[in-house]
Amino acid sequence: MREVAVLGIGQTPIAEHWDKSLRMLAGEAVFAALKDAGRERTDGLFVGNMLSGLLSRQENLGALVADWAGLRGTEAVKVEAACASGAAALRAGLMAVSSGAMDSALVVGVEKMTETVGPQTTAALATAADADWEAAQGLSFVALNALIMRRYLHEYGWQHTDFAPFSINAHANAVHNPYARLHDSITTHDYNRARMVADPINLLDASPIGDGAAAMLLVPTEILKRNGRPMITIAGSASATASIAVHDRRDPLWLAAAYASAKKAYAQAGVSPADIDVFELHDAFSIMAALSLEACGFAERGQGPRLGLEGQIGPSGRVPIATRGGLKARGHPVGATGVYQAVEVVQQLRGEAGATQVPGAKIGMAQNIGGSGATILAHIFRAG
Amino acid sequence: MREVAVLGIGQTPIAEHWDKSLRMLAGEAVFAALKDAGRERTDGLFVGNMLSGLLSRQENLGALVADWAGLRGTEAVKVEAACASGAAALRAGLMAVSSGAMDSALVVGVEKMTETVGPQTTAALATAADADWEAAQGLSFVALNALIMRRYLHEYGWQHTDFAPFSINAHANAVHNPYARLHDSITTHDYNRARMVADPINLLDASPIGDGAAAMLLVPTEILKRNGRPMITIAGSASATASIAVHDRRDPLWLAAAYASAKKAYAQAGVSPADIDVFELHDAFSIMAALSLEACGFAERGQGPRLGLEGQIGPSGRVPIATRGGLKARGHPVGATGVYQAVEVVQQLRGEAGATQVPGAKIGMAQNIGGSGATILAHIFRAG
Repeated sequence: MREVAVLGIGQTPIAEHWDKSLRMLAGEAVFAALKDAGRERTDGLFVGNMLSGLLSRQENLGALVADWAGLRGTEAVKVEAACASGAAALRAGLMAVSSGAMDSALVVGVEKMTETVGPQTTAALATAADADWEAAQGLSFVALNALIMRRYLHEYGWQHTDFAPFSINAHANAVHNPYARLHDSITTHDYNRARMVADPINLLDASPIGDGAAAMLLVPTEILKRNGRPMITIAGSASATASIAVHDRRDPLWLAAAYASAKKAYAQAGVSPADIDVFELHDAFSIMAALSLEACGFAERGQGPRLGLEGQIGPSGRVPIATRGGLKARGHPVGATGVYQAVEVVQQLRGEAGATQVPGAKIGMAQNIGGSGATILAHIFRAG
Repeated sequence: MREVAVLGIGQTPIAEHWDKSLRMLAGEAVFAALKDAGRERTDGLFVGNMLSGLLSRQENLGALVADWAGLRGTEAVKVEAACASGAAALRAGLMAVSSGAMDSALVVGVEKMTETVGPQTTAALATAADADWEAAQGLSFVALNALIMRRYLHEYGWQHTDFAPFSINAHANAVHNPYARLHDSITTHDYNRARMVADPINLLDASPIGDGAAAMLLVPTEILKRNGRPMITIAGSASATASIAVHDRRDPLWLAAAYASAKKAYAQAGVSPADIDVFELHDAFSIMAALSLEACGFAERGQGPRLGLEGQIGPSGRVPIATRGGLKARGHPVGATGVYQAVEVVQQLRGEAGATQVPGAKIGMAQNIGGSGATILAHIFRAG
C-alpha cells in the first residue's frame, strides 16, 4: 500500500451562486487544485456529491465534471454517502492511488443547493435519513438532530446556552476565511435569541447550506519527495457506519461510527487525540460538535460543551475546531463539505491559515458525517 | 497491488418486486453472495446505484444496506456512474482490496424502479444524459439512442431488421436464466413488427427496466489459493469517459470510452479480443451492442451487425454475448446491471451457466456503459 500525499488544493467561495451551475462550480475547484499542484491532468476524478440527481436532475456526474473541466476521457465516478460524500470521495481517491491503479487522483466535492429545479432542499436533505422509517414520518433532518439535542440536554443537564461557544468560535474564524458562507461574528446574546428552527435547535445551532466545490489532488508520496513541494501526507483514513435510523441505536447520544473510524485512523497514524493539532469536525448542528468531540476522545461522555465553555476550541486552544468557520459559518454544501474540511486541514498544516492559523500545527484530522451519525469518515493528515 | 479474486456471487430475479423495497432487494443479493462465499462478514460494502435519491427518496445507501443486511458498523458507500454504477462499484471495491485497505469487499448493485415515489422513470433515466444541454431539450434517454441508431443506419447502410439477431439471441438465452426479467423467445418476425418506441428503436431493441440486485464478494487471490474454492481472478479493470453530451463527440458512432477502457483492460490481462470467451456487453439498446462490439475490437467499424447475422454471437459462436439474456432480456435495473454482468461472467467461468454455458470458457469480459457512452468500464475475469 503506497503512502499518499496532497499535491494541490482548491476551493470556491460558498454562496448562493445563482450564476454558476453544478459543473461550473466543480470545474472552478478542479482548476484551482490543478493550478496549485502545477499539473494539468489527473489519472482519475472522484466526485463527492449527494443531491445532484434530486436538485439538478443530473447524475453521471463523473463524466459531466471530467468533460467540463477539460479532463474528457479521464476515468471518473461519483461517490455518495449523504453529507459525508466529500470524505467518501477522498477515501476512494486515496485507495485508487495507494493501490497503484493510478498515479494521481483528483477529488472534488461539489453541491448546488440554491436556484435548483428539484424539490425543496429540506425534503432533499431528508434522503440522508431512513426514508421508510424516519422521513416517512415527516421528520426533517434538523428535526432528527433536534430530538438528539433535546435528549442530550435532558440526559446530561446542560442548558441550550452552553452550546454557544461552538457557534461563536465558528463564526469568529469564518470572518477570516474568504471562502466562507458567513462573515459576521456573533455573541452569546445573539445565540440565545436566534430564531427557533426545531426546538431546541435555533438558527445559530444550524449550519447554512450553500453552493460550492472544493478539490484536492492526491499523488504517491514519493512524487512529492522528488519535487520538493510542501509535504502533507495522509496518515490515516477510515470509515464506519451505524444504523441509519436514530431510533435503532442502543444509545442515540453516542456516535459509534465516529468512535470506530477515528480509532482506526489514530491507529494507522500512530497517534492519539492529544496529538491532533487541529480538528475539523462536522458541526452541522452544535449538538454534533459535542457528540463528535466525545466519540473521538477529546472529551468525556456528556462533557463535550465543556471544552467550549473553557475556551479550548479556538485556534490557540487545546482542541482547535472549525478553524476556518466549520460547517456552521464556512457553510455546508453537503456533498462538498468533506473536501472543504480536508482542504482546510491542509491549509493549517501548510501554515496558510492566516489569522486563524493554529501555531505549529503538524497533525490534523477531518471528520465528515453522513446522516445523523450513520456514515462517518476520519482522515488524518501530517506535515512532513 | 494485490491480485483480487471473486469468492462469492449472488443475485435476485429481476422483476416488478412490488413487495420488496430497495434495501430488501440489496439485502437478498448480499445474503446470497455471502452464503456462496461461506462468509458472514465483509470489511467493506460498495453499493452501485443510480436512482435511489430520485425514485425512492433515499440516499446514504451504503449505511442503509449495511444496516439492513446485518453488516451494521461496516464501512459502506454508494458509487454512481449512471447505468455504469454497478461496474463502478465493482472497480471501487476492487481497488479497496488491491490497495490492502481491506481484505474483503462486498459489491452490490441495486435498483428499485417500479412502484416508487419519485418522478416518471423516463425522466429519472434522463439524468444520465446532460441535464442542461440534452434533457432540457426534452430528449429522453431512448430518444438519444434513437438518434444514434438512425445515424448508424444512414452512415453504414444497414436496415433496422439487421439488428434482429442481437435481440433474438438475448431472448433465447434468457429463457434459461431463472433470474431474467423476460423468458419468452422471439423471432425476426416479432422483432420487425414490435411497437415503435422512438424511431428507429422499437420495443424489441430496448431493454426492460426492473427491480433487482446482484452482489459479489472480492478477496485477495491468496485467500482463494488457501481455501481451494473455484479460482476466478479479476485480470483487468479499467474505466474511461467521453463527453457526456452526444453532440459534443467528434463521431457519435464511436464509443471512445469503450475503446479506451477495453484497451487498458486487455493490456492488464495480457489478452486480445480473440482471447475473450464470453463478452457480457451493455445492450441497453441493440445499437449499443453493435457499437460496443466495434469499439472493443470484435468487429470492424460499421460492421457490428454482421456478427449477429453470421450467427457468431450465441453461446457456441465466436463472440458469445448476452449469454444470460443481456440487458435486453435478463433486464436492466440500471445501477445493478454492471454487477449482474460480472456475476454472469463468473457463472460462465465456473461452468455454472447451464443451457447457455459457453464451452470451455476461461476468460470473460463485462462491459458497463453509463449514459449514451459517457462512462464505460471493462472488467476481465479469468478462471485459474
